[in-house]
Amino acid sequence: MEMALTEAEAAAERGEPPVGAVVVLKGEVVAAAGNRVRENADPTAHAEILVLRQACRTLNTHRLDGADLHVTLEPCPMCAGAIAEARIRRLYYGAEDPKGGAVDNGVRLFDQPTCHHRPEVYGGILEIRCSELLKGFFSARRP
Amino acid sequence: MEMALTEAEAAAERGEPPVGAVVVLKGEVVAAAGNRVRENADPTAHAEILVLRQACRTLNTHRLDGADLHVTLEPCPMCAGAIAEARIRRLYYGAEDPKGGAVDNGVRLFDQPTCHHRPEVYGGILEIRCSELLKGFFSARRP
Repeated sequence: MEMALTEAEAAAERGEPPVGAVVVLKGEVVAAAGNRVRENADPTAHAEILVLRQACRTLNTHRLDGADLHVTLEPCPMCAGAIAEARIRRLYYGAEDPKGGAVDNGVRLFDQPTCHHRPEVYGGILEIRCSELLKGFFSARRP
Repeated sequence: MEMALTEAEAAAERGEPPVGAVVVLKGEVVAAAGNRVRENADPTAHAEILVLRQACRTLNTHRLDGADLHVTLEPCPMCAGAIAEARIRRLYYGAEDPKGGAVDNGVRLFDQPTCHHRPEVYGGILEIRCSELLKGFFSARRP
């Protein structure tokens, strides 16, 4: 999660909402990424989507069985869906997102009977630092 | 939807589940794509994600306000989330997906209070052809 926080900080420096993510397989970091929605002009370029794509490219697979995802913010519906598609084993996230989250808030995607794959979920990892980084970013941008 | 079906047929020929999608803005086709999960080794490479990314790249924007998406199958949670992120105006889809869909089935993402953007939704467009294409693909692959 420290490395995901570093990615989130780098995203903030690029003017993007500070969210960062890392994929780990067998104790090794396979991929790390931060939000690049504006820079890439890509509404799907959330940290989780970028890191999953990068990990799959590195491993030349479309399924990351046994891999774990660490992300600084509770994933949104798009990213939670991608985590299920990628067959992530364990999801570790930092700050909860009552408005936009889809894991322990909102549609609680992994708890639904139509969800094809459920990772183990561990929330609240380095929660305060993940949360303060986001709060600081958005309060600095408010007029 | 005819063009989305052509993309779906091309996906089937590549050995991918036959789903195709097209983005239209002001009466002009901006992007067209079919499923490339296996070819690209990318679990996010559903037709909808690819077509949204392609349309954004073409228009150099991360929001497709006023654009419509035509897709042969009811979108999954990942793709429905991406459609909301991209601010698609109208979603037209072909076959319903009671097991994997997230629009009129499953989590019904756009009906949830936490959904930030709701497109208008029109399902059942060329439904039989979209559905038969998928059924044919999967029945041919069953042992």
